[in-house]
Amino acid sequence: MECKKCKSPSIYHQKHSGKHFCKECFINDITKKVRKTLGRNIIKNNVKIGIGLSGGKDSLVMAHLLSEFFKPIPNAKLIGLMVDEGIDGFRTDGINNAIDFCNEYDIEYKVVHFKDYIETDLDTIVKLAKEKNLTMNPCSFCGVIRRKILNKIAIIEKCDYLAIGHNLDDISQAVMMNYIEGNIKKLAVLGKDSKNSKFVKRIKPLEKIPEDEVLLFADFLKLKYHKAPCPYSSLSYRSEISEITDQLEENHPGAKYSIVKGFERLLEYLNVPEEVGVCKICGDASSRDICKVCTYLKELEILEKSKF
Amino acid sequence: MECKKCKSPSIYHQKHSGKHFCKECFINDITKKVRKTLGRNIIKNNVKIGIGLSGGKDSLVMAHLLSEFFKPIPNAKLIGLMVDEGIDGFRTDGINNAIDFCNEYDIEYKVVHFKDYIETDLDTIVKLAKEKNLTMNPCSFCGVIRRKILNKIAIIEKCDYLAIGHNLDDISQAVMMNYIEGNIKKLAVLGKDSKNSKFVKRIKPLEKIPEDEVLLFADFLKLKYHKAPCPYSSLSYRSEISEITDQLEENHPGAKYSIVKGFERLLEYLNVPEEVGVCKICGDASSRDICKVCTYLKELEILEKSKF
Repeated sequence: MECKKCKSPSIYHQKHSGKHFCKECFINDITKKVRKTLGRNIIKNNVKIGIGLSGGKDSLVMAHLLSEFFKPIPNAKLIGLMVDEGIDGFRTDGINNAIDFCNEYDIEYKVVHFKDYIETDLDTIVKLAKEKNLTMNPCSFCGVIRRKILNKIAIIEKCDYLAIGHNLDDISQAVMMNYIEGNIKKLAVLGKDSKNSKFVKRIKPLEKIPEDEVLLFADFLKLKYHKAPCPYSSLSYRSEISEITDQLEENHPGAKYSIVKGFERLLEYLNVPEEVGVCKICGDASSRDICKVCTYLKELEILEKSKF
Repeated sequence: MECKKCKSPSIYHQKHSGKHFCKECFINDITKKVRKTLGRNIIKNNVKIGIGLSGGKDSLVMAHLLSEFFKPIPNAKLIGLMVDEGIDGFRTDGINNAIDFCNEYDIEYKVVHFKDYIETDLDTIVKLAKEKNLTMNPCSFCGVIRRKILNKIAIIEKCDYLAIGHNLDDISQAVMMNYIEGNIKKLAVLGKDSKNSKFVKRIKPLEKIPEDEVLLFADFLKLKYHKAPCPYSSLSYRSEISEITDQLEENHPGAKYSIVKGFERLLEYLNVPEEVGVCKICGDASSRDICKVCTYLKELEILEKSKF
């Protein structure tokens, strides 16, 4: 088959669109889509973007593209933000990949640790939760605390935006999870930017790029990314949902796009008022009296260790 | 285990609630839930209800319960409405079950045929679609035409309501299908009663009862229902989605409830304007220029046979 653009031999067939691409046109296609997702409001002068970097393919592809987009923009700044959760035999490798990337691309970076904020690491928390018979999913805990820490350092670093490497698969999974749980408030939060000034505006440059295309892009660019999956990920509800969305995509190419686009259309008609108060314990923005992180720490009886 | 209500030996464990039931308390529980779904506005004097009857477990359980509820109500009328699509070796048995039921329960009934309205039957249409290489799913066609016919006879019979035997499984599947397709208008239609006077108000007495409980109820009552699945059902997108919702329910008891309840909460915040015009061909209510049924008949080149 031929590339639909330049007629060179095709190396990738995009099932949902029926299009064939050569390597170069594939890279251009992804680059264009991501630029369109970001829009003109973001790629501009004097902007500072914090990039959440895990060292995996998604975060490095995102960082590569952001670095390309901002090269010609004067006074724009990028900073890599790495969070070390403390997952033995896993996270250090990822962070090393991210540091090597930042050095190669000449991007400033900062590493922070769960330990800096809660005096303990994720491995210890998972053990503690088991001892206490708490039905806490490691990913749920890790997710909220990582988000809180990333937001905190993005504020400290005076970032205008916080870029997160979620791809189309991640987003379609999140949408489906909330549909299934019937969690309307989380659906609304997922889709709309918070107006609360305590949250740095999040951008998701890869939100329209399927995971397998991110992977192909990373390989074409010979990015040295961290390949091992998180040892806790197989325990997650998300991995169950990802099997469902993968199966749907296999049987109905474009299903992941249709889930996310349908959700975006839904948001246009959805008017859920944003309830943002302040956590009574840490003072951070929270829709409840006590924020999720403080609730978890309380259940684990390690609230006194919190530096939030 | 003991029944949670009367302490007799339990014969059913309701996984999602953790409750155990004896036969009698199970029957009471279902009856109460269905009565609550219907509410006081429906079970009242001088009302006429058309009951869509296929002869399967859902429609007969629904008809049994409606018959029980309306026994003490003066001047209320029930009428069984059967649609014969023309599916060889399948539908006749179902309709015979439904007729036997109506005779036993002393419920008036009426049988109408696809042939009465489009001069042909579903089997012929499926063959025709294949010959014409149309990618038409039998269930999609059958669904819209059956709905149209049921609505038509409910109007002719001056019914105030049209009762449909959809159970919790059916509804959770429909919600998921529309979430995945991203079909916001169909989601809105699914959840809200049409205000258009050309549509008889639909009620779904079993909407909060899971399929396996409907089955158990039918067996406890020794209802003689039609057991064979429709020969076309395995071809359907719906059967693919039902595998997904069944798997979710297995891993997370209550998942089907949470999908439907979440959808109901979503509807409270969802404001999709109802677009009801009139089909240019048949004059029935339609959100498009040409209604779904007329569109299908046109594609099949049998529009001239339509008596709609």
